Parts: sequence; C-alpha cells; structure tokens
Amino acid sequence: MIQGPSDSPGVIDLLGLLAYAELGSFFRLADDAGLAPSLRSKGQLAALAAAEQAHYQTLRDRLEGLGVDPEEAMAPFVEPLDAWHSRTEPQSWLESLVKTYVGDGIAGDFYRKVAALADEETRDLVEGVLAETGRAEFVSETVRAAVDEDPKLAGRLSLWARRLVGEALSQAQAVAVARPDLAALLAKDPKASGDDGTGLGDLAAVSRMFASLTDRHSARLEAMGLSG
Amino acid sequence: MIQGPSDSPGVIDLLGLLAYAELGSFFRLADDAGLAPSLRSKGQLAALAAAEQAHYQTLRDRLEGLGVDPEEAMAPFVEPLDAWHSRTEPQSWLESLVKTYVGDGIAGDFYRKVAALADEETRDLVEGVLAETGRAEFVSETVRAAVDEDPKLAGRLSLWARRLVGEALSQAQAVAVARPDLAALLAKDPKASGDDGTGLGDLAAVSRMFASLTDRHSARLEAMGLSG
Repeated sequence: MIQGPSDSPGVIDLLGLLAYAELGSFFRLADDAGLAPSLRSKGQLAALAAAEQAHYQTLRDRLEGLGVDPEEAMAPFVEPLDAWHSRTEPQSWLESLVKTYVGDGIAGDFYRKVAALADEETRDLVEGVLAETGRAEFVSETVRAAVDEDPKLAGRLSLWARRLVGEALSQAQAVAVARPDLAALLAKDPKASGDDGTGLGDLAAVSRMFASLTDRHSARLEAMGLSG
Repeated sequence: MIQGPSDSPGVIDLLGLLAYAELGSFFRLADDAGLAPSLRSKGQLAALAAAEQAHYQTLRDRLEGLGVDPEEAMAPFVEPLDAWHSRTEPQSWLESLVKTYVGDGIAGDFYRKVAALADEETRDLVEGVLAETGRAEFVSETVRAAVDEDPKLAGRLSLWARRLVGEALSQAQAVAVARPDLAALLAKDPKASGDDGTGLGDLAAVSRMFASLTDRHSARLEAMGLSG
C-alpha cells in the first residue's frame, strides 16, 4: 500500500511541487504584465498572481506544519518548472492567458490527487484552493471572446495549448524518473488493484495518469473556444 | 477652504496616485525576484508584492465606490511613477530592498495625508493599510544586518537611498504642476492659516510638504542602519 501518512515522501514531494508551481506562476504572471493591453487587465493579472502567492503561502505553511523545510521540499522542482516556463514564453496577451488557464488546470488536477491521498487538514487546504478557481473564469471568457471575434485565432491558440501540454509532459516524465516516491504516489489509482512491485509498472501507471490529465485538458480547451 | 468631500478632485487624484503606486510596486517587486539570493527570499518578495496588490485592490474598490472610473483616476500617474521606476532600477538585492523600504515609506506619508483629508470610510481603509506596514520590517532588518556585517555597504546604499528620494521629488514636482487640485490638497497644512490664493503659493507649500517627507526619510534610513 503506497498511500501513507501526509508526511510520506510522496506527499511531501507533491506539496513541494505545488508550492513551487504556485510561486513560479506568481512570478511568470507578473512578468507577463508587459503584454497586458490595458491598465485594467494589468490589474486583473496582478489579482491572479496574488491568488497564486496566497496558495504558495498556504502550501509553504502546511509543509512547515509537517516539520519539513519548505525550500528543501520545493528544490527538486525548481529546475523542471523553470524549464517549462522558459520553453513556453508567451508572445502575446492571449498566449499568456491560455498558458495561465492550462497551467492552473494541470495544477488543479494535481491538487485533486493530493486531496485523494492526504490527511484531513491537507485536504481542507486543497479544497480551499480549488474552491477559488472561479477567479480564473475571466481568463477563459476573455480568450473565448477574442476567438469569437477573430476565429482565425483558434488554430494558432490551439497549437499553443498543445505545445504547453507537450512541454509539461516532457518535464513531468523527467520528474517521474528522478522522484520515484512521487511517481509511485501519482501512479496509484484508487480503483486499480495495486502496484506490480516493479519500478517500470509505476512509470507505465504515471503515463496513464498523464493521459487522464490530457483528457481533462480537452474540456479546458473547449471552455476557451479552442479545440485539441 | 480646500478640504472637501472625498470625491473632490484632489482626493480622487490622491487615491488614483496611491492605487497606481501600489500596482506599479507590485510589478516592480515581482520583477526584482531575479535578484533574490534564495528561494526563501523570493517567497518573501512575493509576499510583499501580494500585499501591494491587496492595497491596490482596496483603493480601486474605493474609487469605484465613489463612482469614479479607477483606471481614469490612475492614468495621470502612470507616466511619472513608471519614470521613477525606470530611473531607479536596482542592481542588487540590497538595492531592491532599500528601494522597497524607501518607496513604501513615502507611500505611507501620502496615506497619512489621505487619512487627514478624507471621509471616515476612506480613513478606515487607509488605517488598515498603514496597520500592515509591520510586514516590511524584515526588509529593514535584512538591510541592517547586511550593513552590520559589511560596513562598507553603508555609504553606497545611503547614496542609493538619496538618489531614490531625489528622483521621487523630481517626478513629484512635475505631478504638482500638472495636477493643481492635488497640489492644493497636499499643500494644505491643517496648522497653517490657509492658502494665499495664488498658484505659486501652492507650489511653495508643496515644496514644504516635500521637505517634511525628506525629514521622515532620515528616520527610515536609520532603521536600515544607513545615514542621510
């Protein structure tokens, strides 16, 4: 049985991954402000970024509460997440919004994984974060409105979204190899009969997990008026 | 009598100035993250930036509550504040911290002006913002610790702080000329007998107000272990 207490290495990895993902998103969103077309949308971007900072703070506090050094828990994920960001630098305001929506969506899937695996206190924390995702609706609405107005955008932005996920999967595969505890945890499907005991079984299961992430990705594309 | 209701042009200007100052600081702090020496200090920077965003949101909501378009109220201050930031780009982590501390200090002085002039609801808002300034203590403590460890830093950082204030005064003088309502409001010293009715009297009074800002600046320098 892989599912263990909240301070199992896999859960700590997952909390560290999410904490750095939130901190990284905070800085990237703020960086993208130069692309915002108006003072008002700059302000909206700042609000989204501040929400990421609040999530980061919550996760950091939880790690400290579990007696873990938060920076140590985040450290293994700095390089892959920074690599994802630098390989997917948005060139326009709409690309930045699509990236935010797709990135937050993938993060949401990981939060749900944490909720399924961790103790009640951590679960409450995760549910608080997920309950806030309504905030991001202006993002999908803005993209959808832009695509409705200029349907030629749909193809280009759909390709962009595809690249975002492709680059994320490539970084995630590297993380899965480097962090076996995390891979084992993510591979754990509560409905499956269990792990076959080989590391390779885990890697295959991780791939299945990623496949399910991309399924949800299609729904997110639709919300933005895009297609996969 | 210049002191009027909260929706007088001078008060609206002051709220718009503070709102854009907070939004601008948010983005500049996030930009400075590349200078942070560790993951932990990056996180501290993100927390400071998020506090600026919260202040921006409060001021923006207040402007909306007064029936004013917040972006219109901020617009006249975008250029001078952006100019200040681009003329005072920090080259190191310590310069970034000194800039934050000095900038927040000047903003605090303006908040106190608002508190003295506006209605009760706006005053409550301002007091909420000022009550939070304890957050920034880690900033002055970090600078002081660095100066204690390497006393040679004091001279260079003191010059930097001087330049920050000099550039701020230069932008502020331009704003005072362009926004006479705001200048009249800021020039208003509750203890003085009143305005002499000429625009020039206002400008002289604004200069006196700036002089009082620089007085407080010395106390802020001392808190960081620097001198004027």
